[in-house]
Amino acid sequence: MDFAKDRYGVSPMVQSSQRLDRVLVRVQELTLEKSDQLIWVRARIHTSRAKGKQCFLVLRQQQFNVQALVAVGERASKQMVKFAANINKESIVDVEAVVRKVEQKIESCSQQDVELHVERIFVISQAEPRLPLQLEDCVRPEGEGDEDGRATVNQDTRLDNRVIDLRTTTSQAIFRLQSGVCQLFRDTLMNKGFVEIQTPKIISAASEGGANVFTVSYFKTSAYLAQSPQLYKQMCICADFDKVFCVGPVFRAEDSNTHRHLTEFVGLDIELAFNYHYHEVIESITDTMVQIFKGLRDKFQTEIQTVGKQFPSEPFKFLEPTLRLEYQEGVAMLREAGVEMGDEEDLSTPNEKLLGRLVKEKYDTDFYVLDKYPLAVRPFYTMPDPTDNKYSNSYDMFMRGEEILSGAQRIHDAQLLTERAIHHNIDLEKIKAYIDSFRFGAPPHGGGGIGLERVCMLYLGLHNVRQTSMFPRDPKRLTP
Amino acid sequence: MDFAKDRYGVSPMVQSSQRLDRVLVRVQELTLEKSDQLIWVRARIHTSRAKGKQCFLVLRQQQFNVQALVAVGERASKQMVKFAANINKESIVDVEAVVRKVEQKIESCSQQDVELHVERIFVISQAEPRLPLQLEDCVRPEGEGDEDGRATVNQDTRLDNRVIDLRTTTSQAIFRLQSGVCQLFRDTLMNKGFVEIQTPKIISAASEGGANVFTVSYFKTSAYLAQSPQLYKQMCICADFDKVFCVGPVFRAEDSNTHRHLTEFVGLDIELAFNYHYHEVIESITDTMVQIFKGLRDKFQTEIQTVGKQFPSEPFKFLEPTLRLEYQEGVAMLREAGVEMGDEEDLSTPNEKLLGRLVKEKYDTDFYVLDKYPLAVRPFYTMPDPTDNKYSNSYDMFMRGEEILSGAQRIHDAQLLTERAIHHNIDLEKIKAYIDSFRFGAPPHGGGGIGLERVCMLYLGLHNVRQTSMFPRDPKRLTP
Repeated sequence: MDFAKDRYGVSPMVQSSQRLDRVLVRVQELTLEKSDQLIWVRARIHTSRAKGKQCFLVLRQQQFNVQALVAVGERASKQMVKFAANINKESIVDVEAVVRKVEQKIESCSQQDVELHVERIFVISQAEPRLPLQLEDCVRPEGEGDEDGRATVNQDTRLDNRVIDLRTTTSQAIFRLQSGVCQLFRDTLMNKGFVEIQTPKIISAASEGGANVFTVSYFKTSAYLAQSPQLYKQMCICADFDKVFCVGPVFRAEDSNTHRHLTEFVGLDIELAFNYHYHEVIESITDTMVQIFKGLRDKFQTEIQTVGKQFPSEPFKFLEPTLRLEYQEGVAMLREAGVEMGDEEDLSTPNEKLLGRLVKEKYDTDFYVLDKYPLAVRPFYTMPDPTDNKYSNSYDMFMRGEEILSGAQRIHDAQLLTERAIHHNIDLEKIKAYIDSFRFGAPPHGGGGIGLERVCMLYLGLHNVRQTSMFPRDPKRLTP
Repeated sequence: MDFAKDRYGVSPMVQSSQRLDRVLVRVQELTLEKSDQLIWVRARIHTSRAKGKQCFLVLRQQQFNVQALVAVGERASKQMVKFAANINKESIVDVEAVVRKVEQKIESCSQQDVELHVERIFVISQAEPRLPLQLEDCVRPEGEGDEDGRATVNQDTRLDNRVIDLRTTTSQAIFRLQSGVCQLFRDTLMNKGFVEIQTPKIISAASEGGANVFTVSYFKTSAYLAQSPQLYKQMCICADFDKVFCVGPVFRAEDSNTHRHLTEFVGLDIELAFNYHYHEVIESITDTMVQIFKGLRDKFQTEIQTVGKQFPSEPFKFLEPTLRLEYQEGVAMLREAGVEMGDEEDLSTPNEKLLGRLVKEKYDTDFYVLDKYPLAVRPFYTMPDPTDNKYSNSYDMFMRGEEILSGAQRIHDAQLLTERAIHHNIDLEKIKAYIDSFRFGAPPHGGGGIGLERVCMLYLGLHNVRQTSMFPRDPKRLTP
């Protein structure tokens, strides 16, 4: 006979057959204040270790965990301890337990001052016995695994089993921080009087010239996936919304298999009318970025440090006001470092990174603006520089030496826009609706598009954009 | 000789050649407090009317406008008045003027207490002389045009010239309110501890069975556009994010040409783990909706009234707590009203609307939940009712008698999910990644997806979802 047989077991599937008024305490709330209280908690079995008449469990809830003890005694039978010890890792359990102060801090858990003395334990959802990957392997710093023979998990295995990989403290921190970036971006702009807009992703003509665009079957015709919301943002400016932003997917049919290219990513896009000089736009964007950096630093320190445990990096540095260099200054710095390049040549990826290191050495900042790009390397709608039309009123922004934003003053005059489109051999018929938008009065304006995944990757000093995309898409990956 | 010749003209295109430190006052700031001040303002020529030696202009900036007077005198010549009178409507001008108190309120302008006495006027961006549609026609209440022979503008003409149509006070109000809905949605959920997620739109298998899905060419293979983020939201729940939301485009290749169907719309999606009963989820969603309704009522009254001038409607009513009816109760109400329908039959659109009217009569609310739909009419992943498997733990929510959200407790058990998929003749191979997500411990959870455009349309009492989509997409419209 098992005197404790009603105190453990596998619960029937929760099908909403009754609404218990039981309070479930959050793991992070399990502190000394709750000492000696009998509580219920729902969590995953993170690890379990049986030892004679006792079983030690670590119960995990998101980034928090707590030690729990099932021990043979008045409230638990031998059978109950055995049952607890045999629950598969990652299963979800409801546990009733007394919160007890511990003599010695439990260093391996987030809740270090208490442990749970389990009185009831029921499985709410069983995990299969064999996990495709182990959470502790997923959070091991790279390199460490190799040294002492323990495993780390390669990226494709992680991504193939993303639902488990996302449960790690590192993933939880990355995507909470990403959610924070979006919120900071929007809140900052809302405070500046911007309006959020929603732009279509299915479009009738390739917005940026036709290369690298995905085709969609659209009833009896075909359409394209928007490579950016830029033309629509501009139409909103022509429609008097004055300052707009949008957050949404951006599609690039580019067969690039690099650490920083995705075929679908999230664009944080800004467009605004300005009065007399596009530097008003640059300042609005850099101020927004600075607000994001400050917000992350002040509100997401735990997440930053959690990620740092697995992927160490230097804290992200920025200046106020943001450093703005002209393209020619950048080229001069590169030449001084031995790079040979022409005045109107675009920055290669290695040169971009090198320039980032040179700027960091000289100015001690991980964020800067490179202004006045050669006109030849920018899209047709970029406003030429008023004094030297080899250059343009355009800029890129960089974090840790990698581009995160590209932007410009746009041409707001239909005639000049037509001339520039012809110069770029663009079929005018295909961009008629776009050009026509500027025929009925258009204010001078500019903007830019920020890659969310890149911002998160570079802020955290990570090295692959797939780490900051929940379900990344690249030429070789469409699942999960 | 024109003594005022430097006081007017067409400015060179603003190309950022200089950064003036001139302050431009906003039109809405032109009040009695600014009386007798000399100010600069940038605005559009809304209307102009010459009258002897005077020209009256109405200058517009978004939803605000002010009267301006150019009169022959010390500061303005005859030529200058003529120039001002000939500026094409919708052109953007910089005006220097003295703000003067007026004797009689100017009823036709938003700034009723003052007018501008113009001293300088320069065209910043010229509109072409012939506008494809007139703003005053665009805001005329339907019906009024017909009666006295004045024009209203049909929807296709508006949408073909959306950049101009969006400048009307009605459009400005609609899309400012829409931006507000998104912000209220997110702020409410953030306060409840939700995390924002970004889900992929390009997917490898049709998420909801295969019908009505757009196909995308994806390098050497093909892919699909996500019909909802639901499967990804659920994976995030399995990945311990606990409560998630996302805002993003949703694609439906449905050849429906109705007032409420779009092929691309914006989904406000919610998914959350619950403890014991899916009504926890319903309450979380209805509370979010109520927060949105209250926020709109309290912060967007101007916008609501502006839209109401063109499209009159009753103020939107809601109850606290939200009314929840069971499907069978709804069917009983319909039968009492003479409708013949089976217990397990889905609601037709006319019956949906009729039920909305009956509910409004009986309970005086424009918002309610219909709970416990027949299992047969819901997707395979819907949790059956625990006591009667003819029904399910699923619900729709309605505003003014039209569905704005569909949701349910989802099956979180891989085995039951497999059984239900087989029952629905779904190819298990295609949803393997989805089903596998539930094999490693999954909490009970539920959620729903809200159509942003429908919420805005129905809240404002409008009659076509194209009015609340900036650049709508339907089977026949892909531009602008």
